[in-house]
Amino acid sequence: MNYGIVIKVLGNLLLFEAIAFLPPLTVSLFTGEKDLFAFIYSILILLLIGFPMSRVNVTNKRVKARDALLIVTLGWVFASFFGSLPFVFSGSIPSIVDAFFETVSGFTTTGATLVQNVEALPKGIIFWRSFTHWIGGMGILVLTIAILPAIGVGGYQIFKAESPGPITDKIVPKIKDTAKILYILYIGLTVFQTILLCLGGMSLFESLVHTFGTVGTGGFSSRNSSIGAYNSSYIIYVISIFMIVSGVNFPLYFDLYKGRWKNVAKNSELKLYLGIIGISTLLITLNLNGKVYSSILETFKHALFQVSSIITTTGYSTVDFDKWTEFSKTILFLLMFVGGSAGSTGGGIKVVRLLIMGKLVKREISKLLHPRAYIPIKLNGKIISSDVVVSVTSFFFLYMVIFALSTLLISLEGIDFLSATSSVATTLGNIGPGFALVGPTQNFSFFSPLSKALFSLLMLFGRLELFTVFLFFVPEFWKNS
Amino acid sequence: MNYGIVIKVLGNLLLFEAIAFLPPLTVSLFTGEKDLFAFIYSILILLLIGFPMSRVNVTNKRVKARDALLIVTLGWVFASFFGSLPFVFSGSIPSIVDAFFETVSGFTTTGATLVQNVEALPKGIIFWRSFTHWIGGMGILVLTIAILPAIGVGGYQIFKAESPGPITDKIVPKIKDTAKILYILYIGLTVFQTILLCLGGMSLFESLVHTFGTVGTGGFSSRNSSIGAYNSSYIIYVISIFMIVSGVNFPLYFDLYKGRWKNVAKNSELKLYLGIIGISTLLITLNLNGKVYSSILETFKHALFQVSSIITTTGYSTVDFDKWTEFSKTILFLLMFVGGSAGSTGGGIKVVRLLIMGKLVKREISKLLHPRAYIPIKLNGKIISSDVVVSVTSFFFLYMVIFALSTLLISLEGIDFLSATSSVATTLGNIGPGFALVGPTQNFSFFSPLSKALFSLLMLFGRLELFTVFLFFVPEFWKNS
Repeated sequence: MNYGIVIKVLGNLLLFEAIAFLPPLTVSLFTGEKDLFAFIYSILILLLIGFPMSRVNVTNKRVKARDALLIVTLGWVFASFFGSLPFVFSGSIPSIVDAFFETVSGFTTTGATLVQNVEALPKGIIFWRSFTHWIGGMGILVLTIAILPAIGVGGYQIFKAESPGPITDKIVPKIKDTAKILYILYIGLTVFQTILLCLGGMSLFESLVHTFGTVGTGGFSSRNSSIGAYNSSYIIYVISIFMIVSGVNFPLYFDLYKGRWKNVAKNSELKLYLGIIGISTLLITLNLNGKVYSSILETFKHALFQVSSIITTTGYSTVDFDKWTEFSKTILFLLMFVGGSAGSTGGGIKVVRLLIMGKLVKREISKLLHPRAYIPIKLNGKIISSDVVVSVTSFFFLYMVIFALSTLLISLEGIDFLSATSSVATTLGNIGPGFALVGPTQNFSFFSPLSKALFSLLMLFGRLELFTVFLFFVPEFWKNS
Repeated sequence: MNYGIVIKVLGNLLLFEAIAFLPPLTVSLFTGEKDLFAFIYSILILLLIGFPMSRVNVTNKRVKARDALLIVTLGWVFASFFGSLPFVFSGSIPSIVDAFFETVSGFTTTGATLVQNVEALPKGIIFWRSFTHWIGGMGILVLTIAILPAIGVGGYQIFKAESPGPITDKIVPKIKDTAKILYILYIGLTVFQTILLCLGGMSLFESLVHTFGTVGTGGFSSRNSSIGAYNSSYIIYVISIFMIVSGVNFPLYFDLYKGRWKNVAKNSELKLYLGIIGISTLLITLNLNGKVYSSILETFKHALFQVSSIITTTGYSTVDFDKWTEFSKTILFLLMFVGGSAGSTGGGIKVVRLLIMGKLVKREISKLLHPRAYIPIKLNGKIISSDVVVSVTSFFFLYMVIFALSTLLISLEGIDFLSATSSVATTLGNIGPGFALVGPTQNFSFFSPLSKALFSLLMLFGRLELFTVFLFFVPEFWKNS
């Protein structure tokens, strides 16, 4: 392990986080609320720790895959720990376990909250809480599209076929190029949505807060009743569309920009993703029609919003969907496992994995008829290597095992089955709200500190796609080779 | 498709079923109850339909894999349909949909029931209901250990490596030999357990009923409160042990008989299976200790019984485990997915599949460190082909998808989440009772006929391990090649 480089990069990350505190600090300056000093103290602490770390003298500049994985995971944990300081210092969330949960929930773009009355928080704190979504969303895009495929981490070859190995001089500029395009795209989306929300009568502050939560597929709101607080179909549709857009595989936007329409039109993950949204919305609309809302258009609007919110793992709500019929709730529950597309800010299992496993099942049935036939698994016309297939199926199994065992641990709280299963599904899938005791009008504050720690871990597991985190439990990982 | 041979074999199956009606008919003769005629009419119908079918002139005697698969699936459906006649004719279960559900539940060794008051049924009917477990258990053993591996159906190569292809003259005697050993073993177990239960003070009739339900891992009882009706620790331990024995991979008993102790001691599926039973029993005992039962021994007894009953997918109960703590209930719920060992009468996903997928996950983590390494998956010291690995992972995915979509369909009944999920899990896994509305003191009678039909299909799906049933929806399957 190249600890020198690990410390140096983490130090730079902390310095970056100090800069990230400037926008919410600016908000505090405007409002003149007491959270101003919380940010100032946090910045000082970050500089005090980050600066010496970033100055570590690194003799060996080679970053191997395992170094990168350690940096990524520790980076997320460090950013969450130090990012929770303003919550503690301002007294908004006094307990460090709680503040850590809230910040992990932010950076992993989950949006599960412990805050009972968001509207009572200082504006700067509300801004920072949502800003973590935006930073986390950007982080995960750069990680899964630029960095991980380049260092050849299992499964990410779905997007790009690069040879595995250490980050060489050749790969770094490539990562930088990809990251640059992603920054422009992400910032573009952010500006566009903010303008559209402002045009809908939302204040600039609230437009920014909800845009951060949308493009990062996070889900923290500045209102207790989330998007339900705005009685505006325009705002509901704008956010629905931007949630769907944020759940798309981002490299497809490069194709769109370069005029490669066919690539986009033929992309099977995109088709399945939009298909699932369409069918789920239709089923819920038909199921709820005449039962809950005044007209079929009203029903459709809320169905589309909730479906988009859950499948993209955002977690905003316009209504208390926990009061919907069992059928409609079950659809939403299943969507928690589907998740967004690969290469998006969304979490969950991801549409492309379900697509590949669906193809596997189809092949398995054909094989009963043709036991000796060689039938390759293709995605968008290209054959997928059996390595990728196995990594997809292992991921699915591990995801379900973690879901099952975590539900068992949470059941020690003595809560009902739906609350236990959905609280785990919604944190592991980086969504936000669940059902029953963790429904959209509820929050996670009643859980014991141990359960909150488990949820924090689950959010990280989900965000870092499981394997990278597990790696640290392998003794060999820590050995010098 | 060789329809001639399909009709002929099914005809023979019906004639066999006519013979299978003789034991319950004998019971009716003794008790002199009204169900005697129900059996006589059923036998006449079976002879009337079965005899001409069995006389079909078959010119082409080759049985291809696809013919065998059609025979197997239709065989299960035919046996269940005609096996439900005595229930209808005797007025015990007047509705044909209900009677079909009950018989499918019997033959698939599920044990989910629609009968509200079992004790009010005629003795011959009670005997037949449990006898279907015994026949079904035998059927699945012969199928998964003797027939399917021989015809090379995906995944069953786990037990034996035979070359795939049509059943040739060489393979048929081999199947017969294996089947013969299985008959002896299965009948031996049956006789042994019946004697032990009789020694415990149970009547011969009830001993037989509960032995059929145990060795077939079925779960139908002659008592409304299942094994809870017998206030005897001896009986509870005898049935616990025989359930565990019946959930073991039967070929291991050959090894035991031939003195190949090492094979048994080193079998990793057996170790994991016993390990899961041990840990689950321990956790439940500790969790319930001092809360529900008078002593830790009492708690252990019921914990061991319920754990063994659920993991082996039998479904007997000594207590209303639906009233246990959320933690203990969640353990039982998870065990519903585990299921018995491959090559046993148990259902569910099967321990060996979980074992293989666990090894896959472990390898995936190692691969992050050694991206170029070739790490084979081994089971009991032998390398498993990637074909088997893929078929295992596809099975798991399909199992979860069927579970999810069926839960969605059942949620249309408007029942709570735990009832919906556990009713699907318990039928798909061939267990019997679930939780809440389908708990051990409840039954499936309140469901709509459509849901009952879905449950019947799920029990068949689970028993025939999914793929064979899906095959019939592939148009190519029906084409002559």
